[in-house]
Amino acid sequence: MTKSFTVVATDPDSSARAGLLETAHGTVETPAFMPVASQGSVKGLTRAALEDLGAQIILVNSYHLFLRPGVEAVQRLGGIHSFISWPKPILSDSGGFQIYSLSPLVKIAEDGVRFSSHLDGTKVFLTPEDVVDIQGKLGTDIMMCLDYFPPYPSTEATMKEAVSLTTRWAARAKSHHDKTESPRHLWGISQGGTFRDLREKSITEIMGLNFDGYAFGGLGLGEPKSQLVEVLESGGALLPRDKPRYLMGMGYVEDVVAAVERGVDLFDCVLPTRNARNGTLFTSRGRVAIKNAKYAEDPRPLDEDCSCYTCRNFSRAYLRHLFERQEITAAVLNTIHNLHFYLDIFRRIRQSIQSNTFGLLRKRILADNVKKEVTK
Amino acid sequence: MTKSFTVVATDPDSSARAGLLETAHGTVETPAFMPVASQGSVKGLTRAALEDLGAQIILVNSYHLFLRPGVEAVQRLGGIHSFISWPKPILSDSGGFQIYSLSPLVKIAEDGVRFSSHLDGTKVFLTPEDVVDIQGKLGTDIMMCLDYFPPYPSTEATMKEAVSLTTRWAARAKSHHDKTESPRHLWGISQGGTFRDLREKSITEIMGLNFDGYAFGGLGLGEPKSQLVEVLESGGALLPRDKPRYLMGMGYVEDVVAAVERGVDLFDCVLPTRNARNGTLFTSRGRVAIKNAKYAEDPRPLDEDCSCYTCRNFSRAYLRHLFERQEITAAVLNTIHNLHFYLDIFRRIRQSIQSNTFGLLRKRILADNVKKEVTK
Repeated sequence: MTKSFTVVATDPDSSARAGLLETAHGTVETPAFMPVASQGSVKGLTRAALEDLGAQIILVNSYHLFLRPGVEAVQRLGGIHSFISWPKPILSDSGGFQIYSLSPLVKIAEDGVRFSSHLDGTKVFLTPEDVVDIQGKLGTDIMMCLDYFPPYPSTEATMKEAVSLTTRWAARAKSHHDKTESPRHLWGISQGGTFRDLREKSITEIMGLNFDGYAFGGLGLGEPKSQLVEVLESGGALLPRDKPRYLMGMGYVEDVVAAVERGVDLFDCVLPTRNARNGTLFTSRGRVAIKNAKYAEDPRPLDEDCSCYTCRNFSRAYLRHLFERQEITAAVLNTIHNLHFYLDIFRRIRQSIQSNTFGLLRKRILADNVKKEVTK
Repeated sequence: MTKSFTVVATDPDSSARAGLLETAHGTVETPAFMPVASQGSVKGLTRAALEDLGAQIILVNSYHLFLRPGVEAVQRLGGIHSFISWPKPILSDSGGFQIYSLSPLVKIAEDGVRFSSHLDGTKVFLTPEDVVDIQGKLGTDIMMCLDYFPPYPSTEATMKEAVSLTTRWAARAKSHHDKTESPRHLWGISQGGTFRDLREKSITEIMGLNFDGYAFGGLGLGEPKSQLVEVLESGGALLPRDKPRYLMGMGYVEDVVAAVERGVDLFDCVLPTRNARNGTLFTSRGRVAIKNAKYAEDPRPLDEDCSCYTCRNFSRAYLRHLFERQEITAAVLNTIHNLHFYLDIFRRIRQSIQSNTFGLLRKRILADNVKKEVTK
């Protein structure tokens, strides 16, 4: 059975749960964080580094790989696992988010989406069925339906249309996927922004199509945190307990913890990797802006409580020096640290759910991490 | 004894020799190649990657570290080995090459050299004694004297003055160093370009100062290859057999082989690392320009005879994709490959000298590598 999801432990005081997500390329322990390998590499890392960090699943961007090197090329090269040499589970997004955010000329029609490549302007038209086929050719383990969402904020009327279109596209994607008898997961995405009725309508409709997993889409676009929690709570109450739940693209630690508390199993975000390259590093005592002059002669590791390769070997002073000199190795070492920080938090979350201590861990993480700067 | 050099094998048909170079941070098997860590990191690599590649010694640039983060900062942070977390031997150049090539306003005087920082224009004056002190504060294992060389080509009269000044500066550096009773090596640099008499004069004068090792400086600036060989032969005949010899900054494989044949023990060059970042990769069948469209769907490793991490795991198609997408991981994987290629050639050179097969290896390497493009 390569598509199952099993809840192995639940938190008595919240909706948090620990699970095992089975795919054709192995099992993922949830709650899980997916490092983002947009173009087929987690920027700055080798596969070996990613394995050492304990990543169990990564995310690739269909949009980017569709444009370059092209899905047929990836298919001819043996599929995405072979192409990027990552033997473990891979989730692909539908490409929708990149189309709506990167492409200059987007037109939404009932049939599908028309857009221009942000690289060379090539015009592309993709249907929901195409998007399933693209991910099938890539050969990812978890594929996402093409969804549609308007920019935030938008009117209820606009959002209502987006929800309806997303449902119709999801139905077409599911029906297309069902013909293939593929071992791959196909997950549905709910939309509706923070309009409670619309989100619930979307979830109900998408659930009716019986996907292998369910995602919250169109969040993290600027809505207030309180509304995010509302969506996760009211939506979570509707979703089946025996299917995995994925909060797309959101990765602030406080959001992750709030979402896990409300039953979310899967996350992806560029935050740890992008911030690493920009010199913002997460530690158990808050964030470190490594370019800060106060670190110029600081012999301490970034985080004295961290066991990552970077913290075991290098000082803040050295990391600052490399960052200031724009050395590539700065991106490498910083990415190792930030991903370790994220993957370690998820390890601790999983353990705490299994040992009935999630509530305690949650408090500790929030006390440590709420966006504060390290003060000394 | 932390400053010895022992010849352990000699080639019966040439001046090639295998040796052991002792430093305060360990032994280097020679002939050896030093990866360049200009700012204190080999661009794109972690220390662990460099260790996996089998690097025994690396080079850091005094000029860069002097400007940022500053030698006093490095000293307060425990010295260069501690600062960059590299426990093995480190050679520092004098900074002369960078001063003459990067700095906009250079004035040479009897006392020393005046220049402006290429970063912020700060005016700096350094004497030969200062340059020893700078490297002493960094705490490198092998320090180089401040030398002077004019641009290539230059007149014999100009070169003669450069040789004389280099000798006078070397004498001051040596005398200053002798006062410290430091366990560090101080090596002298000969100048003279390709003027045979001047090069021999320079070598003789520098040798008279009794350094721990001797470098050929001011080469690889555009002179014909035949003249390089002449310099190495006539100069090599003068140098003491029991001291290590270093050809500064030159790294084309054919030059390396020609220099080893003429008794050179130590090399450094940015060629493998810089070319890696630019997508030019060395293989046993010649050079690969990885951006070439013909590799777009090439499932083969870069070099089927290579055992490096990159070749064991990734296809040319994937490496091309990463390079084209300007992914940082392209620089990482390419650097691993090119450095492996270089360090492996040096391993084979050392073995061949010990097993009396250097002549055979030399022919095979030259047949494989003389700047040809891979044709299929």
